[in-house]
Amino acid sequence: MDSQPLSTLREDDLVQRLTRNLPVGHRVIAGAGDDCAAVRVPGRKEWQLLKTDCLVEDVHFRREHRPEQVGWKALCRAISDIGACGGKPDAALVTVAAPGGLPVAYLEGIYRGLNRAARRFGVSLVGGETARSPGALFLSVALTGWVKPARFVRRNGGRAGDALFVTGRLGGSFGADGGGRHLSFIPRVAEGRWLAKNFAIHAMMDLSDGLGADLPRLADASRRGYAIDLATLPRHRGCTVAQAVGDGEDYELLFAIAAADADTLSAAWRKKFPRLALTRIGTLTAKRGDRTPLAPGYTHFAATDGDA
Amino acid sequence: MDSQPLSTLREDDLVQRLTRNLPVGHRVIAGAGDDCAAVRVPGRKEWQLLKTDCLVEDVHFRREHRPEQVGWKALCRAISDIGACGGKPDAALVTVAAPGGLPVAYLEGIYRGLNRAARRFGVSLVGGETARSPGALFLSVALTGWVKPARFVRRNGGRAGDALFVTGRLGGSFGADGGGRHLSFIPRVAEGRWLAKNFAIHAMMDLSDGLGADLPRLADASRRGYAIDLATLPRHRGCTVAQAVGDGEDYELLFAIAAADADTLSAAWRKKFPRLALTRIGTLTAKRGDRTPLAPGYTHFAATDGDA
Repeated sequence: MDSQPLSTLREDDLVQRLTRNLPVGHRVIAGAGDDCAAVRVPGRKEWQLLKTDCLVEDVHFRREHRPEQVGWKALCRAISDIGACGGKPDAALVTVAAPGGLPVAYLEGIYRGLNRAARRFGVSLVGGETARSPGALFLSVALTGWVKPARFVRRNGGRAGDALFVTGRLGGSFGADGGGRHLSFIPRVAEGRWLAKNFAIHAMMDLSDGLGADLPRLADASRRGYAIDLATLPRHRGCTVAQAVGDGEDYELLFAIAAADADTLSAAWRKKFPRLALTRIGTLTAKRGDRTPLAPGYTHFAATDGDA
Repeated sequence: MDSQPLSTLREDDLVQRLTRNLPVGHRVIAGAGDDCAAVRVPGRKEWQLLKTDCLVEDVHFRREHRPEQVGWKALCRAISDIGACGGKPDAALVTVAAPGGLPVAYLEGIYRGLNRAARRFGVSLVGGETARSPGALFLSVALTGWVKPARFVRRNGGRAGDALFVTGRLGGSFGADGGGRHLSFIPRVAEGRWLAKNFAIHAMMDLSDGLGADLPRLADASRRGYAIDLATLPRHRGCTVAQAVGDGEDYELLFAIAAADADTLSAAWRKKFPRLALTRIGTLTAKRGDRTPLAPGYTHFAATDGDA
């Protein structure tokens, strides 16, 4: 038996090994490898989006973090993925595996945060499960959503010459104490849906592992290279370029659009979302191997997680 | 802050505390508290069923168990819940949180088991997520399904005088080494759908925590009592009544049907499923407090898990 440990594998390679040959029906539009799965539902014009995402104690949060923020983050990570596909979130199930010594009040706080996120983004919390954990607290969210087929944006449609944009600012999502924006971010659902509705977005994803890990994923899916002007990266106050590229957990949108549409988009964006930056950071290039070197970001299984 | 630990609460009470005041839209038919959530989907006659279920290492399985069986169990538990609502399973997402030292081959074995269960029950595995765990291996499955509204069976429709039935045999699902039927059971999807299609089943659920824990749940949801003839309980070879009541993880169906239909059902069942026992074990009674004493089963949070 192959005893190679997980920690020796790049996470994306692991996912690829695990998900080849999965049984998928003919109604499955997008499966493993995109932000969300998309499934055709007989009788419905819209496709259903399906997403699952988990938070693990001491990996994605720590016990000293406010439970309301942990709950918020747990649901908003999945909401962010639905938004990055151009979709609208719908119904969520929550699984909690908790050690018996956890204060009930902490779990109630997590549910308050889940509630707040659900109300803010129009999600129904329709159930879930509690289980016992021998150690770490584990939260898993399953979320459905809907998208019109013409507005479903994947990672794989980027074309040579496309302009690359990111919303908001990058870097520094973890404060000195491990708290910070990664616990309170606003998923870009309104922005993702507006983009998908009003522009021909060729490829899009949310930045969860950092531009340095996520841009190569979008480029790989689209079989392109990229040229990034690192000096133009929109950074949070006090962040270096390396932090903007490598910190991760920005939950901003990264997308590709025809260069000819870039100026129209920028002008329309400023009117629609005057308080959120939109920055053109570079270009998709024809040759897949032709890539601006980026700090590696969180690509290793031992340090991160990813979509299977 | 209330520092009461989870382990001091009955699991059903915990779930009730956590899930009051959840935001649910007007399209949600059944939310927290049933085997599955059911959601109305505009444009579809069928309702969508949503279920999430998790397996935690050293709680629901151990590392020495064959990974194929662990994967089988992870998906089949959720499939069992869909079947117990009268539904047909459709698409699944899998979340794995694994320690970095886990052999890749073990995770591949889990995926083989997931695959086998998916093919057997017509489920599409449409994606999921891998994450790092600091300790135990966690598996969470989110599963969609569909059911015709007239065939959707919940726990809460039992009536006074109804006959109570269980499929198969109970007890002894854990072998001496912790292996056994709980890792290789066959979810009763065909049986649950046939029952819901051909009979007026008033209430139904699958037996995951044992009759002693699950029958009170069905009776509570239906606001009834019950009289059980313990001597009639269908037991696996070598099992005592206490084991049949308390071992759990049988994944057989428990349901209530009008007593007038009981004989017709039994005769039709023998023709349709000649190799699977169907046993009338007792009656739902009018007074909620009027209950045959049963061994407590796994109702405590410290020892089990449950539907939220």
